[in-house]
Amino acid sequence: MAETPTRSQRADARRNVEAILDAAVRVLARDPDASVAVIAREAGVGRVTLYGHFQNRVALLSAVVDRALNETTAAITEARLEEGEPFDALARLVVATWSVTHRHGALVVAAQRSLPQDALTSAHAAPMAAAETLFERGQRSGVFRDDISAAWLVTLLHNVTHGASTAVHDGQLDAVEAPRLILATMAGTVTPPGTPVPSALDHAVGGVS
Amino acid sequence: MAETPTRSQRADARRNVEAILDAAVRVLARDPDASVAVIAREAGVGRVTLYGHFQNRVALLSAVVDRALNETTAAITEARLEEGEPFDALARLVVATWSVTHRHGALVVAAQRSLPQDALTSAHAAPMAAAETLFERGQRSGVFRDDISAAWLVTLLHNVTHGASTAVHDGQLDAVEAPRLILATMAGTVTPPGTPVPSALDHAVGGVS
Repeated sequence: MAETPTRSQRADARRNVEAILDAAVRVLARDPDASVAVIAREAGVGRVTLYGHFQNRVALLSAVVDRALNETTAAITEARLEEGEPFDALARLVVATWSVTHRHGALVVAAQRSLPQDALTSAHAAPMAAAETLFERGQRSGVFRDDISAAWLVTLLHNVTHGASTAVHDGQLDAVEAPRLILATMAGTVTPPGTPVPSALDHAVGGVS
Repeated sequence: MAETPTRSQRADARRNVEAILDAAVRVLARDPDASVAVIAREAGVGRVTLYGHFQNRVALLSAVVDRALNETTAAITEARLEEGEPFDALARLVVATWSVTHRHGALVVAAQRSLPQDALTSAHAAPMAAAETLFERGQRSGVFRDDISAAWLVTLLHNVTHGASTAVHDGQLDAVEAPRLILATMAGTVTPPGTPVPSALDHAVGGVS
């Protein structure tokens, strides 16, 4: 029978897991094809220790993605989307989701290559539900067009944000420009036909990258 | 020394290549992880014949993607983007790119998983250049906003179209709805701030799927 780990052994294990996840984010942000060996070296742990916590590269990548999406949900909660004018709340949503996505760099690419679509979809469920609530609020109040489903608007925000992140990673887009472009896209899309596209949103994303 | 193939042998080889590419599109449209063996069976050729034309799965996938992008370029050329009102031309661009993308179904997913980003980027160069020319024309004529780069608008169309294709494949979006949503997104994004979003574009995508 295995011995019960002591409290300090459990604390060590937790520290190792956090160090491995932090290292994975740093390494994968530079190179989406980075191996487990490179991540272990960056984390300052042995490969045996890493495999003790994560059975394989996919399991490690899953844990990194889960943590990233938890951070996204926290950032969205902090953006208080239930408050204020829907276009202003949309600007806060764009800033919150862009910041977390951009910080994780090529992790997005690594995850798309290696994780099954089901796992990616379920990891995004919580932040996507929060975003959908805002789109529905804007539609109910007549400020956002309601002939486009809130679910599509969420999918769009997801694709546009990830597309911008990939473009920045490929050197095709300046990171400072990205939130303004994402917001212009989302604001233009939710504006009801026949209504002018709002022009005073840029201040909301100034200085974000 | 290998014998020079006869004219009828060369014709056989061409037919086999076309049959393999057609089979790959059909099989990958259903299952992005389909193996070379399944594709050979669908094409009615032996695996040895298939590997005689395509060294490995990645080479086959590359050839399928190249052909799909050539079809996209042809569809865009046929849409005569250089003619007429920029918003109407944008509607024709959306219809052309959606039709080809949707017909290839999960090939998009298969390609993103298996092909290096460089190969995907260069395969998209020709249709993307054609789309960029339209966005620049709309900007020069003052109909499209010019504070968003034409290059970003192309990236956006690419991401939104692929996102819609994935959503249809996952059963989250009705294929008949997709071109309308893509056009609403693109039209809203190119509308200059302070200008009303055009409302009479839906006729342009009616009946497309």
